Amino acid sequence: LALKINEIGEFGLIESIRKNCLPPREGVLKGIGDDCAVYQLSPGRVLLLTTDMLVEDVHFLRSSVTPFQLGRKAIAVNLSDIAAMGGIPLVALISLAIPPDRTVEEIQELYRGMREMCGPYAVSIVGGDTVASQGNLIINVCLIGEVDEREVLYRSGARPGDRIYLTGVVGDSAAGLAILKGEITASESLAAHFLKAHNEPDPLIETGRIIAASRLASAMIDLSDGLAADLEHIAEQSGVGALLIENEIPLSRELKGLADYADRTPLDFALSGGEDYVLLVTVPAENTREFEQAFRQERTSSLFQVGEIQKEKGIRIRHEDGSVKELAHKGFDHFSGP
Amino acid sequence: LALKINEIGEFGLIESIRKNCLPPREGVLKGIGDDCAVYQLSPGRVLLLTTDMLVEDVHFLRSSVTPFQLGRKAIAVNLSDIAAMGGIPLVALISLAIPPDRTVEEIQELYRGMREMCGPYAVSIVGGDTVASQGNLIINVCLIGEVDEREVLYRSGARPGDRIYLTGVVGDSAAGLAILKGEITASESLAAHFLKAHNEPDPLIETGRIIAASRLASAMIDLSDGLAADLEHIAEQSGVGALLIENEIPLSRELKGLADYADRTPLDFALSGGEDYVLLVTVPAENTREFEQAFRQERTSSLFQVGEIQKEKGIRIRHEDGSVKELAHKGFDHFSGP
Repeated sequence: LALKINEIGEFGLIESIRKNCLPPREGVLKGIGDDCAVYQLSPGRVLLLTTDMLVEDVHFLRSSVTPFQLGRKAIAVNLSDIAAMGGIPLVALISLAIPPDRTVEEIQELYRGMREMCGPYAVSIVGGDTVASQGNLIINVCLIGEVDEREVLYRSGARPGDRIYLTGVVGDSAAGLAILKGEITASESLAAHFLKAHNEPDPLIETGRIIAASRLASAMIDLSDGLAADLEHIAEQSGVGALLIENEIPLSRELKGLADYADRTPLDFALSGGEDYVLLVTVPAENTREFEQAFRQERTSSLFQVGEIQKEKGIRIRHEDGSVKELAHKGFDHFSGP
Repeated sequence: LALKINEIGEFGLIESIRKNCLPPREGVLKGIGDDCAVYQLSPGRVLLLTTDMLVEDVHFLRSSVTPFQLGRKAIAVNLSDIAAMGGIPLVALISLAIPPDRTVEEIQELYRGMREMCGPYAVSIVGGDTVASQGNLIINVCLIGEVDEREVLYRSGARPGDRIYLTGVVGDSAAGLAILKGEITASESLAAHFLKAHNEPDPLIETGRIIAASRLASAMIDLSDGLAADLEHIAEQSGVGALLIENEIPLSRELKGLADYADRTPLDFALSGGEDYVLLVTVPAENTREFEQAFRQERTSSLFQVGEIQKEKGIRIRHEDGSVKELAHKGFDHFSGP
């Protein structure tokens, strides 16, 4: 009867929250369930609203990331949510719960990292809240952006036959996390590459803008939970399924070159790792040629076609030998046990 | 050299953060340092942005507030910040860090409380983040509102000669907290009154709107840190000082009737308690008659004139015997030791 959070899991909890929320007020074009909420304040342009909470010892270890990197990443992951809707970021609010023994320098470094990430996008930190924590350091970022209403890309727009694209390699961040956790080992230079991918993600704001402004794509999401789980979010919201082609999934030279994967494969890192912060885009087949042209003209990131949207529900992968397998849901669930 | 957060205190930290923030982007009319940030998205109307983080065992005890009350209060304190700028609340984002052993019912009750408080103002919960906490429950609310640019009331508008008003009694919430902490005792019915004041604050959105729409006031703040500290915020931002008249500070019948104050007086609770969530308004002397008329026509709350803004810096109080004393800064600092 007294069901615990870890028994229904993160996605069960979100679903229960969503069901229990009031019918949205006029102007709410999208509530819970996409990368950002979408609110129409005035005709033509919409506000994009997103928030992410980072908890020490859950999302990061104090020993494995510098305060500067942490501040930078806290902003980057929110920028990535704005990128995934095709938006332009504007202003941020920062809430910090700080254990009283932290140094002023540590907090200033955290802010320096945040400003470093805000700068190129002219995002202003306009407010926040600083409170004492009796436990861990907690960072909550709330980011507000905007976009032309006709350009917003939701998770729900994918249709059977649409091609699936990724804007960069996947799996490196997960390999970095595995190194931090001592699950795998790597040479010093490889380890540095993977740790950078994990600790210093770059949000793809310009890439998201190019995709949205082209008006040629049907859906978009940023890869935070992992390729399989995030493609599943697109599939669920769109009422479709998807097929990935193993050979086409872009892996870095470094990930392919890793000698010690423990009991995992490069594909495992790519499919279920998470925190890649590249964009997954679906594009109707008749738009793909024009889309690829528009994209390559700008050259803000790479582009890989990795599969297609299908009518049949579920996420499948076609292996090199031609066999097709159903992917079990492997996204990161904060509340499920080990 | 490695200065600790608890050595510079909350306000020192906020000052250090403010100094280190980038020059704000175009459109940021107010950054850190008021009840809300103010961002002009389009001519005429401005966005109001505010966020508050509530940490278990710092801001509340699990044993002394129900999840329903807690959810309600988390929204109320943010609504109060919108009220203090004269704004209309629109949409909210909720981040929760949840210890895995909490029950689903507890989290649903928390959301029920949030919805209960959002309902009358047609505020939609449009998004958020739910993560695992290894320590305490943490709730971050980010609330976005709007207001006509000409109606925004900042902390910085007070001028010498302005009269100071409160829109309700002060000190009851602090008495409730003192009861919860076992510092004072009260009869069952009095205790219920104070606990309600502490656990179930009502934000004064309508009152804030009436004051802002009248265009007769010069500055406004909501009392969260305590009358003395919040008046000091107004004074500092406006470059002025203030005089409070002890006899005019509105106390509830219940606070006056409390038998056991331990080593404190009702005035102590009123001046340095905090969490009253009434509005403090300054009004130029020549506007006071019209202001009081406009206010009383609507009757959304009480109104008490409690002092005046003065040129000389600092916050003073005139006691019943005519003596005037300087008030030491007594606001709640999250990082200062006991």
